[in-house]
This record gives sequence, structure tokens and C-alpha cells, in this order.
Amino acid sequence: MKAEIITIGDEILSGQTLNTNAAFIGEILTQNHVDVSGSVVVGDKEEPILEAFRNAFDNNDLIIVTGGLGPTHDDLTLDCIVKFFNTELIKSEEVLKDIKSIFDKRNREVTPSNEAQAMVPKIADIIRNYFGTAPGSWIEKDDKIFVSMPGVPFEMKEMMTGYIIPRLTEEKLENKSNRITKSLLTTGIPESYIFERLGDINELLKDSAMAFLPSQFGVRLRITVDGKNADDVKDKFSFIEQQIRAKVGQYIYGVDNDTLEGIIGKLLLERDLTIAVAESCTGGLISARITNISGSSKYFERGIIAYSNGSKVEHFKIDENMIDQYGAVSMEVARLMAEGVKAVSGTDIGLAVTGIMGPGGASFNKPVGLVYIGYCDNKICTAREFHFGDDRILNKDRTSQAALDMLRRNLLGISYED
Amino acid sequence: MKAEIITIGDEILSGQTLNTNAAFIGEILTQNHVDVSGSVVVGDKEEPILEAFRNAFDNNDLIIVTGGLGPTHDDLTLDCIVKFFNTELIKSEEVLKDIKSIFDKRNREVTPSNEAQAMVPKIADIIRNYFGTAPGSWIEKDDKIFVSMPGVPFEMKEMMTGYIIPRLTEEKLENKSNRITKSLLTTGIPESYIFERLGDINELLKDSAMAFLPSQFGVRLRITVDGKNADDVKDKFSFIEQQIRAKVGQYIYGVDNDTLEGIIGKLLLERDLTIAVAESCTGGLISARITNISGSSKYFERGIIAYSNGSKVEHFKIDENMIDQYGAVSMEVARLMAEGVKAVSGTDIGLAVTGIMGPGGASFNKPVGLVYIGYCDNKICTAREFHFGDDRILNKDRTSQAALDMLRRNLLGISYED
Repeated sequence: MKAEIITIGDEILSGQTLNTNAAFIGEILTQNHVDVSGSVVVGDKEEPILEAFRNAFDNNDLIIVTGGLGPTHDDLTLDCIVKFFNTELIKSEEVLKDIKSIFDKRNREVTPSNEAQAMVPKIADIIRNYFGTAPGSWIEKDDKIFVSMPGVPFEMKEMMTGYIIPRLTEEKLENKSNRITKSLLTTGIPESYIFERLGDINELLKDSAMAFLPSQFGVRLRITVDGKNADDVKDKFSFIEQQIRAKVGQYIYGVDNDTLEGIIGKLLLERDLTIAVAESCTGGLISARITNISGSSKYFERGIIAYSNGSKVEHFKIDENMIDQYGAVSMEVARLMAEGVKAVSGTDIGLAVTGIMGPGGASFNKPVGLVYIGYCDNKICTAREFHFGDDRILNKDRTSQAALDMLRRNLLGISYED
Repeated sequence: MKAEIITIGDEILSGQTLNTNAAFIGEILTQNHVDVSGSVVVGDKEEPILEAFRNAFDNNDLIIVTGGLGPTHDDLTLDCIVKFFNTELIKSEEVLKDIKSIFDKRNREVTPSNEAQAMVPKIADIIRNYFGTAPGSWIEKDDKIFVSMPGVPFEMKEMMTGYIIPRLTEEKLENKSNRITKSLLTTGIPESYIFERLGDINELLKDSAMAFLPSQFGVRLRITVDGKNADDVKDKFSFIEQQIRAKVGQYIYGVDNDTLEGIIGKLLLERDLTIAVAESCTGGLISARITNISGSSKYFERGIIAYSNGSKVEHFKIDENMIDQYGAVSMEVARLMAEGVKAVSGTDIGLAVTGIMGPGGASFNKPVGLVYIGYCDNKICTAREFHFGDDRILNKDRTSQAALDMLRRNLLGISYED
């Protein structure tokens, strides 16, 4: 099955909005063995939209459209669908009920422009919208499928995962078992180091493929294996994965859509351990990531963001002389913060960071990007030094990742190579 | 000047990586009055890359390429540039020095595959990379410009803003003063409500354009005005902006690339006020946003993430009976948390949130999405109730935005409409 993605909106064309939708759709289609032949962005004008519909419909089995379904004057997708399929709009009482329930939930009145969103193409199956007011459409014609969804990302995602992929799987897709695509997620090691360690990459991969995808959170290794049948693919993939794990396994924290906060959440739950976090330079980011996981209240007891020296002394019972002697950004203070936050909160583990995120705050001996991470449990109290870059936001991301990885390593008993 | 953006990488085509680069480039080009004619994604294969180069070069004045410049086997862009321009690679000592300095800074050794990144096309002007190892290239031929950059977003961004846009502006772009594009950033009011309040949109806009761009943080109103000359454009724009501000002004917290945390940072600095934050359901996100702003240590004193009831009692000196009587998620507790965190930290302002982010934790009277935000300064102590949706991560975003907006409103003396 061949698919094209059409994203509608001037704001995408001019880059005012990231095209996260095309990426999400591309990913979920690829996972389900649909070939994405192209991805087109068109502005909020009727003729280019119709032209994109025509081109995509001529060359694909599946056309997925997002955007242009809102309640305002610049939303033209529905009109274009009516023209393209030579159909008409009818009022859906079911959609109207959904719209009213959304507004009820937020204690707001439905406006006439929202009521107008209950008008849907006559030939379409309605895709209900649980997060917003514009419904989606599923239209079949000439043995092809045309799907239209709102451009608001979380509304679109719910429709893709809750309706479109299940319906495609049930009705249209064969189960292709002769391909595996899987990503191994590493952190704490640069792309080039992984590459060197893996040795002869062609020898390792043979006719399989691997991409190195670096970001501030680490390097994602995406492996794609094709083969004669399910067993062949599985064997080939196992061989490659084993080789990679043998060489850089300690840096691999998860696979595919795992997050480091999800992984450490599972580890803490399994071991029935609680944690408290003391943050300085990350300003709450580590705690925010830990609490992104549903159920984190079972292991996350509290977080303290001690920006001022006074609050460090007060919350973590650190001797003020230690801060004077070593500085707030030091191995010693990181360790004492971890020890202190563990003690005051009565948890099993204390995790702490202190560092210089930039652009200000640096000195000759303590450059921007210098970070200390402290870790304490019932057996050990330790701290490590890290060196990151010049950008404040990236440094916060990197520091939060390194702290969560230090937690992971300690939970799993994996020591650092030095 | 007409431009096309080419993004290289299987990971973009299959959506494993968001194409943030095309959006960033589209935005900055549009801001500088370059028309983006198209945006193409190609995989890591030589022939499709060369084909994309040929098409783009035939139809545009400016071709901007990102991706495929890393140190591994799947990076083919440089080879394709050599073939397309019939040139060769030479070793750049300047680039080699940059690569070594990057590795020095992180206390790591340079690997042979990184050293190979010092090879650059002979006909190119080198664009230095301050955050990574792969340099960019600026090539001019047949009165056209061809630019190649790494795909790592922060490396690409630095090259766009630090080199490419300045050089384009200096050498190639005329100063187009007969167009203004500006966004007004609203929060706390749905898209359809704004639309209704603005009345007859065609009457308001005449021949100008406005897009409504909603997200969980609010609705961005992007206005584009064309006119005969600079004064004409300015007059038209002022008229539209004034009308909008008259109708929904209290919801507008900033323009263009402003962030709410940046705006409240400026307000706090101007007024010489300090703040402490008490978080429960947002898990540190509010503090993390406030501290994204460089210099926030001048006004952000501390943040306390009190997930457990015990930590709420301990840190904010809340009477345990109050929590038993009203529940941890209540108007009363939100107000007491704000009052408590202000008192214990000795700041001018205390801001607090408590709520149910989901999917668990709800009860009949307290559904997922119910949030209370408390605010205390030296004159008032208050709290408000909010209703958000079903998704945990979106609810955290929305709650953080509503809390920062409550702070903004109180700093500016703007009361809520009820």
C-alpha cells in the first residue's frame, strides 16, 4: 500500500508551525508497512489544495490529509473535499453532541462557528474527535482511501491511532512479517564513538540498514532488516542487535519509543524504591520528566529546586562553609544535595544536579556546560562531573538526560567506563 | 528570491525524526522576505538526492540542504555535492581545529571518522560549526546559491542565524518594507471565541490575511499585511492590531517569538520582585519553564514539587486538617500552597498548582483535568479553578501556561472575565 501525506496550512509552508503531523503520520504508516511515497505541504488556498488532492489520488492507494478543518475563515479543506468528490455537506447530530460535550467539560458555551463544525461530507464515514470540535472523514472511492483530519496534533494523533490505523489493519493491510525496524536508544556516548566501536559496519549489517540519529538526548540507532521470512528476519536482527549490545550495551537504555523517564519509572516500581530530586541548574526539568509518567506518584516523593545558596543550605542541611569552600557548582555540593534531599524526604534515593547552563554564570575554572550530578542510595553516595556545550536549553536537556542515566546505571549496577 | 528546502534522511521520510529543520528554515526565510516555493524530503540514497538537487537548482535562486553530513556510512550529501558540482574534497585545517576544540571541551579524543569531517568541497566557502563536527558549505554557481548544512537542529540553526541569513541580507536581499507579518499570542481563550468576538473578519482584515493557529499553549493570531509602501503597511497593520487588542487584548501576552516565561521574567525584573513556586501536578514544569530564561536566578528563588501530602504539610506549613477537609486538589489547598511557599522562601510572590493530570487519580467530583492555581503576593492571596482535558502531558502544558498567565495578569493588574 502506497501513501501520500498532504499537510494544509500557510503556517507550515512558512515554517511558523512545525510539521509534526507529517512526521507522526509517516512514522505510524511505516511501522504498519505502508510505503510513504511523498509528503506535500500546501497553503490555505483552494486551487493548490485541489491540485494536491488530484496528484495524490492519481498516484497512491491512501491519501492522508491534515489541517484546514478549524472554525475560522482560513479553513478550506471541507469545501475542497465537497468539490473534489462532488458531494455535499450534511449536519451530523452525533458530531454536534460531541462538540457540546467538549464545551460542557470546559464550562464554556458553544459558539455558532463551532456548531457549523457539525457539518460533514455526505459520502464520508465520520471519525469522532475526542479532544476538539472538528471531526475527521474517511472516504473510499475507486478502491482508494482518502482520509481528512484536523491539523491540531493531539486531535490528529488520536484519530490516527484510535481509528485509522485499526481500520486499515483490519480491512486493508496484510501482515508483513519479512521486515523488522527497531531502534536502540543510547545516551552518554557520541555518534562517532559508537561508529568506531562497531568496527566494520558493512560486515555487521550485510544487507540490512542502520541509521545513526543524534540529538541532545543521545544517539538513536535505527536498524531495518529485510529477509525471506519471519524467522530469517528475526535471526538476522538478533545477530545485529547482539553485536551492538556487546560493544555499546551499557549505553543502551531502551528501544523504539521508550523514554529514559519511563525506563527508570519501571525500575523504581519493580524494586519498590522511592526517589526525591534536588535540582539547581535544571530548574525542575528532571522532576518534570519523571512526573510525565503516569503513576509516578508511587515513587516520586518530592523535588526541590534550590536556585539560591540560602535555599540549598535550608533544604538540604548543607554546611554553608562547604558551599563557600567548594562553590555551589562542585562535586562536593552535588553529593551533599543528593544526600540532603534523600534525608529530608525519607526516600530510598536522592538525585541532585548543580551546574552552569549559560550564557552567564561562568568563571575561568568553571565554564558554561560544567555540571555535577550527585546520587545517593542506602549504600553509596557519589557524584560525577560532566561537560556539556554552550546553549542553555540544550544543556538543561543534556543534564536531565545524564542525571536520569546515572540513576539508571546505579539501579542496574552498571558502572561508568572512564 | 525563490527558495527550496531539501531535507535528507530516511528518518525524516519515515517520520522517525520530526522535520523541524524545514520549519525553522521556512520561517527564517519568510521573515526575510524569501519565498519558499517548496520543501522536499529525500532518503539516504545517492540518486534521489542528486535528482532533488537538479530539480531545486533548475527552479530556484536559493537551495538549502540539511542532513547527511555526519561521520557515518549513511551520510552521502558531501559525495553528492562533489558529483553535482563536479568538484573535489580538500582538507580544511580550520575545520580540523574546530573539531579538535569541540572534543577537547568535552574531554574526549577525536576519532578518525571525525577527522574525516575536515574534508570540504573545494569550491565551497566553509560555514563553521560551533556545536558539532560537520561544517556547512556555501556554493555559488550560475548566479544561484546552494547551501548545505548538517541535519542536527541546533548546529543547523546556528549556521542559518549566524552565517546564512546575515550573508544573504548583506549580499542578496533587498529590504522589502511593503509587507509586515506579525503574530499576536493569546492564551486562556478558545479559537472560536476569538473568532466570534472579532465580528466580521473580512471587514476587519480587508485585503490583509490572518491565520488562527491553536495549540495547548493558546491561539497564535498571525497577521500578514501588504501595502503600497512602508507607511501604508504600518497604518493598515496598526488598525488591525488595535481592533484585535480592543476585543481580546487581555488574552494577548506577547508577539511573535515571545514566550510567557520570557514575558513574566521581564515583568518580575522590572518590578524587582522575586518568586517561589509550589508545584504538585505539573511536577516541576512551571519552574523548568521559568528557569529556561537566562538570568532567571535574579527573580526565581526556589521551586518545591510536593507530590506527597506529607511534603505539602512539611514545606508549606499547611494544616493537615485542611488537606483532609478539602482534599489536596482544592481551591483552599492551592491558596495555602501559594501562601506557604511565599512565606518559607521569603519571596514577594508565591505561585502554586494542584490538580489531576490523569489518566489516574480522578473521582466523581474531581475529574481528570481539574486544576487549581494559587497566587499570593504582599497584597492578595487568591486561587482559581480550571478545567482542562484528558491527556496527561497536554494537561501539564496547559496548567503551566495557565499558572504563568495568572502570574502575568496579577503583575499587570488584569482581572479575569467571568
